[in-house]
Amino acid sequence: MRTSIATVCISGTLEQKMLACAKAGFDGIEIFEQDLTVSPMSPEEVLALANRLGLSLDLFQPFRDFEGVDENTFVANLARAEAKFQLMNRLGISTMLLCSNVGTATINDDELFVTQIRALGELAAGYGVKIAYEALAWGTFVNTYGHSWRIVQKVNHPNVGLCLDSFHILSRGDDPAGIAAIPAEKIFFVQLADAPVLSMDILSWSRHYRVFPGEGAFELDAFMGHLVRSGYDGIVSLEIFNDVFRQSNVERTAVDGMRSLIWLQDKTATLLGAGATTYPLGISALPGAQEASGFDYAEIRTEDPEAVAGMLAQLGFSFRGQHRRKPVTLWSAGNARIIINTQRSRGITAEVSGFGIQVPDATLGTMRATALKAPVVPRHHTVGEQPLHGFTAPDATEVFFGTTATEPAWTAEFGDGSALSDTGSITGIDHINLAQPWQAFDESVLFYTSTLNLAARPGTEVPSPMGLVRSQVLRTTDGAVRLALNIVPHGLEGTGDRAPSYPEHIAVHTDDIISLARQAVAAGMEFLPVPNNYYEDLAARFALSGETLVQLQELNLLYDRDEHGEFLHFYTETVGSMFLEVVQRRGGYDGYGAPNAPVRLAAQFERNRLTTY
Amino acid sequence: MRTSIATVCISGTLEQKMLACAKAGFDGIEIFEQDLTVSPMSPEEVLALANRLGLSLDLFQPFRDFEGVDENTFVANLARAEAKFQLMNRLGISTMLLCSNVGTATINDDELFVTQIRALGELAAGYGVKIAYEALAWGTFVNTYGHSWRIVQKVNHPNVGLCLDSFHILSRGDDPAGIAAIPAEKIFFVQLADAPVLSMDILSWSRHYRVFPGEGAFELDAFMGHLVRSGYDGIVSLEIFNDVFRQSNVERTAVDGMRSLIWLQDKTATLLGAGATTYPLGISALPGAQEASGFDYAEIRTEDPEAVAGMLAQLGFSFRGQHRRKPVTLWSAGNARIIINTQRSRGITAEVSGFGIQVPDATLGTMRATALKAPVVPRHHTVGEQPLHGFTAPDATEVFFGTTATEPAWTAEFGDGSALSDTGSITGIDHINLAQPWQAFDESVLFYTSTLNLAARPGTEVPSPMGLVRSQVLRTTDGAVRLALNIVPHGLEGTGDRAPSYPEHIAVHTDDIISLARQAVAAGMEFLPVPNNYYEDLAARFALSGETLVQLQELNLLYDRDEHGEFLHFYTETVGSMFLEVVQRRGGYDGYGAPNAPVRLAAQFERNRLTTY
Repeated sequence: MRTSIATVCISGTLEQKMLACAKAGFDGIEIFEQDLTVSPMSPEEVLALANRLGLSLDLFQPFRDFEGVDENTFVANLARAEAKFQLMNRLGISTMLLCSNVGTATINDDELFVTQIRALGELAAGYGVKIAYEALAWGTFVNTYGHSWRIVQKVNHPNVGLCLDSFHILSRGDDPAGIAAIPAEKIFFVQLADAPVLSMDILSWSRHYRVFPGEGAFELDAFMGHLVRSGYDGIVSLEIFNDVFRQSNVERTAVDGMRSLIWLQDKTATLLGAGATTYPLGISALPGAQEASGFDYAEIRTEDPEAVAGMLAQLGFSFRGQHRRKPVTLWSAGNARIIINTQRSRGITAEVSGFGIQVPDATLGTMRATALKAPVVPRHHTVGEQPLHGFTAPDATEVFFGTTATEPAWTAEFGDGSALSDTGSITGIDHINLAQPWQAFDESVLFYTSTLNLAARPGTEVPSPMGLVRSQVLRTTDGAVRLALNIVPHGLEGTGDRAPSYPEHIAVHTDDIISLARQAVAAGMEFLPVPNNYYEDLAARFALSGETLVQLQELNLLYDRDEHGEFLHFYTETVGSMFLEVVQRRGGYDGYGAPNAPVRLAAQFERNRLTTY
Repeated sequence: MRTSIATVCISGTLEQKMLACAKAGFDGIEIFEQDLTVSPMSPEEVLALANRLGLSLDLFQPFRDFEGVDENTFVANLARAEAKFQLMNRLGISTMLLCSNVGTATINDDELFVTQIRALGELAAGYGVKIAYEALAWGTFVNTYGHSWRIVQKVNHPNVGLCLDSFHILSRGDDPAGIAAIPAEKIFFVQLADAPVLSMDILSWSRHYRVFPGEGAFELDAFMGHLVRSGYDGIVSLEIFNDVFRQSNVERTAVDGMRSLIWLQDKTATLLGAGATTYPLGISALPGAQEASGFDYAEIRTEDPEAVAGMLAQLGFSFRGQHRRKPVTLWSAGNARIIINTQRSRGITAEVSGFGIQVPDATLGTMRATALKAPVVPRHHTVGEQPLHGFTAPDATEVFFGTTATEPAWTAEFGDGSALSDTGSITGIDHINLAQPWQAFDESVLFYTSTLNLAARPGTEVPSPMGLVRSQVLRTTDGAVRLALNIVPHGLEGTGDRAPSYPEHIAVHTDDIISLARQAVAAGMEFLPVPNNYYEDLAARFALSGETLVQLQELNLLYDRDEHGEFLHFYTETVGSMFLEVVQRRGGYDGYGAPNAPVRLAAQFERNRLTTY
């Protein structure tokens, strides 16, 4: 098969779109007619540019509202089609998408559809054009691929075949297994789209909320499996109508789309098992995914390390010394390693700038990320230093792979490498919370899940004084690595790709939060204050002893409980755009204290005078 | 009745919300519990602040998932309720909202609901609290107001009554007429929300897309009419869950909400006819709405008037001279008057800064706008000058009322007031297109429709290289005044309230666009170029003669047709963030050439290198 993408997926002029698609590595593109109509490039210029870029022009689309009409309309429709066939000849495009009629069809008669589509096929044959008939999910009379396939069989014309679109099939809950039984030579084109689970009319869902494979909820690996079993060896093309993608940077969105196909081929290969047909899209196989065993470190960038260092000391972190060559220091407590970096920190009070995860084979992790088009972070290392394998995520976070180890080799590059003496009870990094500009969210989900092999959990929404914050957790199965992505409200995005007005945080876990909190308070730490009203509501919600309540309130601790266990946590004050959280999980509690997040956001809003206007 | 608003509608801390609601003129507020829980203010402090601001605390909400549960849960629920009654006593709030159970109800038995709610009412009575029972549209067992009313009747307790919410009733398509038959003393609370027509699950629709009355599609005047007929004289409160409002400026959103109630009372009064009960919300009556007879003028603000003046001259506008006192010039053609203003223009290349409309009584128009809390534009006039009555719209456009006249009196303040000699065929202003920051859109729709007495037409979406542009027309019945509001894609909003990167325009109409275009070309005007591909598509879509096509293409004219007539139009080049359009309507064509808008946006994107990133 070959990869393609519809020009309607991305922003810019037709020329900008073509350049971006070629650069991202697609084999070809679908020309969405309106992109051509509004372009100053002639069809011949478009073809010449495509040739120069090495892009095939795979499909001309859409041709609408053709079949099931009265005789006068039919004659006019044929004339309209012929003008487009002539245009396609000039573009050198041999396949046209025919959408099932949603507007002008008045006669519900399969025989009439067959007769009219056969006449279209006959006319198309004279121009060397093939018609790929697609059942739109909201087609007036034809809206399932089974129905369009019955019609195509009855048309029985070499120039008429099917277009299969995963959205139109899966959005209706239709079973795609029947695809495997369709003769491959009658499948003229395949379009792929994923989508989140939304209960809305299918047309709005389709036109605004489609996402790239791996960013939604459809089982597209299974869909691809049926396609492979049919023997199909044609074009697989992304056709994504998404309001955000259409407003975003064209090159970046094209890469996001290509990444989704690389990921999908890998998922499909896993599903199908080993064999010659397991890499159906003709993309090189992805190096194997590895389960991360934990965080290697978290990094804070700051112009002035004093405030952050002070907080770490108050929490009982050990100072491990300065890097032998860079203006970077290491702090650790148990398995939690935090790096304070003053490089490239001009104007940055403090921010969560990156993190590392540990995998069995860091080089393999790097190879996989590179194959997924993750942008490499340039990072030098000298003789005797551990190599660093890093990438920049869509939210500008720098992500590195390290090798699984209780004491990573790179820590020897700090201070004198002397033995560690913890003074607190912190055991490791629990999770990292990263702010996402809204236009990067879907891209980030696919980036982190595919490169780090994490799974996306269902999202939540957290009320705050600045608006609703959408939150989604990505994690390993065992919870060793957990990322919480927050889409920040309008006005807090900051400039560029970062969301500096909305604080990000690093959460560490402990076995004894009460003692740790007492120790931190004794060391002079000030926690984010929790209002008295919160504790009164806690008393009404949970049967907690008076003693427990007093202890929680005295230490500004927040509390949550579910059927598996309990969760206690507290927050430090915010420095710049970052803060720290300390959590204790008791029993099988596996959440993040979501009911307490509004309390935290409101307190930060009060303290820091955050404002959206 | 008295006016109120739920704190959940708006952004900020509880204190900021209370200050904004008081300033906007609400009689009281509903305390949304979470706003209190996250607040550092104690209940006593909240009460004291409310007293100082003259706000009543009308409702404590929500209390959820109470009835239809097993005995153990019931006992726990009563304990939870009692804690909240104690809290309400401290707040001085006497009414609690009880939402029908959506989470924990396991037993579908009206008798059980009645027994459990009666016990709650009995417990509430001891605290002087009344329970307002509301059927949520997605309640597990109770989801219609008819059902909740049957339960309240069976409960038959003085402390248990109904809460009626327009969203929960109208979103299900339920008939609100039955409200008139409910005894007023059993209606304990009324909540109002409007909503756009959306086909999605009711819960998502309710939690994210509610809007203030007049900004959606519900017939809330009829709803209010049923309420008036019931004899209800209690509180009418806005309860709007809207993602945008929760992110927007708190004071402005509160005023938007108050405006919606002023507008709604006026609509209700019109529906009910004259009488003592026609102003049910206790707000002073709005001065009568007037049908605008046309545009008085359009105004362009520019630092350097040469470019705009040149375009007007090329289109055959007459220069009418300088204002006798201000750095402002007047140009006219037929009934189209365009003012070029260089006041407060530093850094502005050119923008559409305002417009005037003509009404029978300008003073009455001003009084109505003032009553609708339109912010007044400070504008001085001296002896012998016409008074100006102006307001700033949410999109920062300055809007003025003038008196209906073919030659307005104020034109005498320009030049020598000598007789006008048109050289072109322009007959008047057809429409004005204004860019809207996305967060101001709903507010703008209500502002323009209520202050200028315009009606909102169904919206459309226009594809562009920068993303989808949402467009909505507001107009008088006869089309004498037409505004097209465009929500601009991300990145084009500019700073503050204006959307300067997205061009706005003034469209004038003519009886003979062919001659006018020829004349303008001869005068050296350059039109926005239309791509050749457009004319090829036009030929495929419409049966136009070759001669017509050649003429259209030669003059860069765009064309549209519907069942009523034809539309021809062209665009000038963009200067700053504005351009001009010339249109000719033939026959009964009443649209705006929407199919051509993508061509225009793409050409402007190409010419001006507009970019979103």
